Amino acid sequence: MPMFSIKLRVSWVDTDTAQIVHFSNYFRFFEKAEEEFYRNIGLNLDDLAQKYGLLLPRIEAFCRYMAPSRFNDLLEVQLSIKELGRKSIKYGFKVYNENNGKQVAEGYLVVVATDRRVEKSMELPKEIVDKLAPFVEGS
Amino acid sequence: MPMFSIKLRVSWVDTDTAQIVHFSNYFRFFEKAEEEFYRNIGLNLDDLAQKYGLLLPRIEAFCRYMAPSRFNDLLEVQLSIKELGRKSIKYGFKVYNENNGKQVAEGYLVVVATDRRVEKSMELPKEIVDKLAPFVEGS
Amino acid sequence: MPMFSIKLRVSWVDTDTAQIVHFSNYFRFFEKAEEEFYRNIGLNLDDLAQKYGLLLPRIEAFCRYMAPSRFNDLLEVQLSIKELGRKSIKYGFKVYNENNGKQVAEGYLVVVATDRRVEKSMELPKEIVDKLAPFVEGS
Amino acid sequence: MPMFSIKLRVSWVDTDTAQIVHFSNYFRFFEKAEEEFYRNIGLNLDDLAQKYGLLLPRIEAFCRYMAPSRFNDLLEVQLSIKELGRKSIKYGFKVYNENNGKQVAEGYLVVVATDRRVEKSMELPKEIVDKLAPFVEGS
Repeated sequence: MPMFSIKLRVSWVDTDTAQIVHFSNYFRFFEKAEEEFYRNIGLNLDDLAQKYGLLLPRIEAFCRYMAPSRFNDLLEVQLSIKELGRKSIKYGFKVYNENNGKQVAEGYLVVVATDRRVEKSMELPKEIVDKLAPFVEGS
Repeated sequence: MPMFSIKLRVSWVDTDTAQIVHFSNYFRFFEKAEEEFYRNIGLNLDDLAQKYGLLLPRIEAFCRYMAPSRFNDLLEVQLSIKELGRKSIKYGFKVYNENNGKQVAEGYLVVVATDRRVEKSMELPKEIVDKLAPFVEGS
Repeated sequence: MPMFSIKLRVSWVDTDTAQIVHFSNYFRFFEKAEEEFYRNIGLNLDDLAQKYGLLLPRIEAFCRYMAPSRFNDLLEVQLSIKELGRKSIKYGFKVYNENNGKQVAEGYLVVVATDRRVEKSMELPKEIVDKLAPFVEGS
Repeated sequence: MPMFSIKLRVSWVDTDTAQIVHFSNYFRFFEKAEEEFYRNIGLNLDDLAQKYGLLLPRIEAFCRYMAPSRFNDLLEVQLSIKELGRKSIKYGFKVYNENNGKQVAEGYLVVVATDRRVEKSMELPKEIVDKLAPFVEGS
């Protein structure tokens, strides 16, 4: 199974009064990894929006927090596909802190293929499924 | 069981290119409700931090998205306590869109009482438990 | 001259590792006041976008920081109109901390009326000018 | 004069209902460049905070917006030092959109060296001045 991950550096604005990354920002880190993943496999969401009216709104989001991360920490966000359905994708994420090797967080996002012209779910186009399939866990 | 809820208005900055509230912001709305809840029941987190070294970091966060909300929508965020443990609290949230009556989202946050001086979990002080108890679901 | 102001409570997520409100968030507080101002004088930006293709993008933003504000502080954001041009509006803002009476920040936003259908500036519609005029400083 | 710049990719969460980057986020992009600049010249703000009690709060922030940028655009943020005072630094920023070569924004941040132990301004330590001096415009 091919792996996908990004590195990102914690910014001052990501942190809060507890001097750690605000919990909501891990969801933004997850999505950043997803955005870079699409770029990496050659999927352009703007093109897909034009061609199919496709949007990928989130219907579930979860995160478990295992250790804090702080300003200037370098994080690795690993992405995998836990489930690839006809109309939905469940992405799994693990976040590691490169500064101390600790796992910081794990979680998932469930996105559902939506035709924004009719605001209804739609089947994932084959060109997307073909590009995602190699990243499904256990494949 | 006493109820607690806040109203909040969706700002321009809360939205994204899909012209709906970005999914990560619902977690901020949940936390806003929690902050107002503490104020409402007379718990001052700054005082508790001073007195007990108490912080309430999140260890789990979940949200299910049921309908989009948009700029200028008025949202109601309802808070309840799903579980009140010795060291942790599980808050449940439901978000409704006052503009159309629809439920927008539901989710939860699990927070764990932490003594920041030793960076370990601690028992919830009795003065907190006493104030939270009436809000536990089914109580 | 009529006055317009809002109150807002500093949230945990608004703060950073310095345990004060992150400087970028004052611009969001300015915009929040602007949004509430439009609602208060009966201007609905969604309707105007539909009717005239009108958007109000910012072309300049400035803030001077005078004192920090912290989690749970109650802020008052005052809005006035410093200049009302044919195609642009310069809003002035002052932020006060209700907890200690201190002025926290002052700044401005310059917005330009833009027809999004042609992506060019346009004259402010008369129905807007009429509602804004009473709030111009010195009027 | 040595140059410093970073590249950054616009994320979905950076955008708003106008389908462009929210104006407040350019200030976060400025600060991101500043953070990477410190790392690049070997200044560790955490160490300086420990050694001198040094914080660098912003006292002024300004941005002029020249063109919109959108999801997935690749931005270059250029940083220079416009003024290096005894106690303050004025950073200048220019933002270019790599996708179309257009300048998107320009602005500045004025930061003031502050001893957080006494909450007063302080002289910039020589080790910092020495590292910043080569980046002053016109030097």
